[in-house]
Amino acid sequence: MCHIVGSGPGDPELLTVKAVRLLKEAEVIIYDDLGTEAAVELHASPASERVCVGKRGGRRSARQADIDDLLVQHCLQGRRVVRLKGGCPSVFSRVGSELRALAAAGVPVELVPGVSSALAAPLLAGFPLTDTAIGRSFVVVSAHNPKEADWESLARGADTLVLLMASSNLPEVVERLLATPLPAETPVAVVHAAGLPEQRVWRAALDGVVQATADAGPLSPSVVVIGRVAALPEQAWQQ
Amino acid sequence: MCHIVGSGPGDPELLTVKAVRLLKEAEVIIYDDLGTEAAVELHASPASERVCVGKRGGRRSARQADIDDLLVQHCLQGRRVVRLKGGCPSVFSRVGSELRALAAAGVPVELVPGVSSALAAPLLAGFPLTDTAIGRSFVVVSAHNPKEADWESLARGADTLVLLMASSNLPEVVERLLATPLPAETPVAVVHAAGLPEQRVWRAALDGVVQATADAGPLSPSVVVIGRVAALPEQAWQQ
Repeated sequence: MCHIVGSGPGDPELLTVKAVRLLKEAEVIIYDDLGTEAAVELHASPASERVCVGKRGGRRSARQADIDDLLVQHCLQGRRVVRLKGGCPSVFSRVGSELRALAAAGVPVELVPGVSSALAAPLLAGFPLTDTAIGRSFVVVSAHNPKEADWESLARGADTLVLLMASSNLPEVVERLLATPLPAETPVAVVHAAGLPEQRVWRAALDGVVQATADAGPLSPSVVVIGRVAALPEQAWQQ
Repeated sequence: MCHIVGSGPGDPELLTVKAVRLLKEAEVIIYDDLGTEAAVELHASPASERVCVGKRGGRRSARQADIDDLLVQHCLQGRRVVRLKGGCPSVFSRVGSELRALAAAGVPVELVPGVSSALAAPLLAGFPLTDTAIGRSFVVVSAHNPKEADWESLARGADTLVLLMASSNLPEVVERLLATPLPAETPVAVVHAAGLPEQRVWRAALDGVVQATADAGPLSPSVVVIGRVAALPEQAWQQ
């Protein structure tokens, strides 16, 4: 049996009760290090085997095909395996590849959702992603490869645009969005390390956000929210 | 202090560790009943005061302005107040109204994200909301008032469309979507009561989904996913 489990945005208190139970019961834990290490250290059984497949100490992360193989091998040995992923496996987690590999090997799977930073990061920065007056819909997109996305349709598609994996590509994405009908003064919030002690939030207009974050150092991991909700007055709410 | 806390999609195991702690510590819990009752019963202190403001036993839910007032009154008495909401407060929770009322009264607030059914329901039905090949973006919209939304822009805006509060309006939403360039054969999954023992999932093409769910009885609460990811073969994955 393979449990594919979301670990939330990184604060161990934002793990679900189910994720904690499955970590305690697991014989093998295969985890990315981005935001999942603290959860493993807190809750894994001392007897468990732990395999980190994320980027670590300058090493590259494992190839997806190798992760798929690793999961299948451990599961076919009849061990209780937890595949722990940052955020929620529903969103940009490459879980499809792992599901196909496990199905081909006849391994049963349980999918366990987690708190996704796409929705949690704005809330942890002080504002909700929707608002009855100014944010009735939102679109979530990976900015990992900005050339692949149809930014004009995305910008027109919803009141609010949420970008994941935008950190290093922010200048290119902003340039592409400024070429759409989206107004240059559209509010933007960049939420770095949501919910962690090092959380930082930058707010700027669309045409000023690259400059506003230029001196910030590495922005990853960040969630970028573009739309009127990003200007909601968190100062007044969070005192 | 007011903690505004998401309770997830209804399965108490999908509460966060933080939500459980805050429920245990709360002196007053103000909750909607949709998916939050089980959490309150399991974790609230016996000494706590509990106020249900949702629809219950045929009564109407409380007016939002009355809920705002209730929150402010309890907080100004210096009590530890938890406002428990279904799903995540970031998404269609009307939290904006409560935040404004609390800010106006000078009450400090902590926002605590939860697992949103918008992302969790597809996963609990066996498929992720994104896929590197066929689902690189998704848009989330409330179908509470179908006349208010620009369905053509929404349909063009992302690979996948996620509808919340669509249950009673599904025929009207489908009719409006069929008038956009979205193909009639687009896969749809309707996920009812995600993660609960009574979970049901219907799969159909866009032009067949109303008929497919016609005899199902009340669909609420349901999440409706429209797009190619909704046809991913959960049968092969979940054995």
